[in-house]
Amino acid sequence: MELYDSNRSAAAYRVRLALSWKGLSHRAIALSLSKGGGQQLLPEYRALNPQGMLPSLVDDDFVLTQSLAILEYLEETHPSPPLLPAGARQRARARQFAQIIVSDIQSLTNLRVLTYLRSVLNTPDVARSLWFRHWLLEGLDALELWLTAESTGEFCVGDTVTMADICLVPLLHSARRFSLALEDFPRLCEVEEACLALPAFQQAHPDRYPEDT
Amino acid sequence: MELYDSNRSAAAYRVRLALSWKGLSHRAIALSLSKGGGQQLLPEYRALNPQGMLPSLVDDDFVLTQSLAILEYLEETHPSPPLLPAGARQRARARQFAQIIVSDIQSLTNLRVLTYLRSVLNTPDVARSLWFRHWLLEGLDALELWLTAESTGEFCVGDTVTMADICLVPLLHSARRFSLALEDFPRLCEVEEACLALPAFQQAHPDRYPEDT
Repeated sequence: MELYDSNRSAAAYRVRLALSWKGLSHRAIALSLSKGGGQQLLPEYRALNPQGMLPSLVDDDFVLTQSLAILEYLEETHPSPPLLPAGARQRARARQFAQIIVSDIQSLTNLRVLTYLRSVLNTPDVARSLWFRHWLLEGLDALELWLTAESTGEFCVGDTVTMADICLVPLLHSARRFSLALEDFPRLCEVEEACLALPAFQQAHPDRYPEDT
Repeated sequence: MELYDSNRSAAAYRVRLALSWKGLSHRAIALSLSKGGGQQLLPEYRALNPQGMLPSLVDDDFVLTQSLAILEYLEETHPSPPLLPAGARQRARARQFAQIIVSDIQSLTNLRVLTYLRSVLNTPDVARSLWFRHWLLEGLDALELWLTAESTGEFCVGDTVTMADICLVPLLHSARRFSLALEDFPRLCEVEEACLALPAFQQAHPDRYPEDT
């Protein structure tokens, strides 16, 4: 499998984590989100992924985008070790947590949205920073409350890694990269720590990949 | 089952469609997104769903939010008729299409985002309208291209309804409500027409529900 990737993309980081967790090797094709206005927007890449977004997974002749669809695909094609727990309700919980991160936080704070705010709406730096912090903090509040109410295990849903953890770790990495203090989210940080102690998570960490400057 | 719902919520409409498609009866609890600043933000509802968003599904004592997580839950607990096709690749395609709509279009154009732009960033009406149209049209372009390249059937993925269709119909309904012309998206409109001919889709249509004014 090939993964179109960037060490600045939280969505690509989710897929790296899933591949690593399942012990699946892949060839990484790193794109720069900054050089020349972003290599993900070039016609060569858009031929593969018309949205011009990361990641794209290529499995033989099958090209798949959208990180959560990729996670579900990997789960169906390589079920062990699983990314979803047993039981419909627990599985629903893991998907709910992942969806909050992907739809309600990172879709609002990613590069294309911040670029649109700056270049089309001429939103000043201060207002863009406010925007970023607002959606991130509102989302983190919901997730911290969720974990406190729902989880008694070491990870987001029970005592094994699920796609919820695989979405949480890149989210907190992004938050730190933008200097957001996380002391109000002790449960999220505990789960993150448990994840980052695992070799599979260490192998997929953005620091292991060339910096996209 | 109970569904916290509004005829103005595309996310709730998705879940109504899924319930209707699977022939599952439910009790609807309609919230007004406008009255008193939005009933979804009241403490009573936030006790159920701390994000203060729609929909929430209550199945006995199990409360679940996030429309796509709810669709997957209904698929696991009530597999027939299915919302996902056979075959890992076709299933991935349906999820990919649904995820583009939920994460990359509707999360950016929903009420809470438009409200934030107006009330916090003081974005003028013209710029908010530009924002709305930009993300909607960019997304519709991607979906039309996707359908043209990928689908030869009556619906988004082959000749049966999947969660892709269940996300597409509410998206196009929202687009029309905001007077967006859809003549550039003939394939999307064809699939919509095929869906709206089905009794299950007619039963879940927002026009059947009291208008939230």
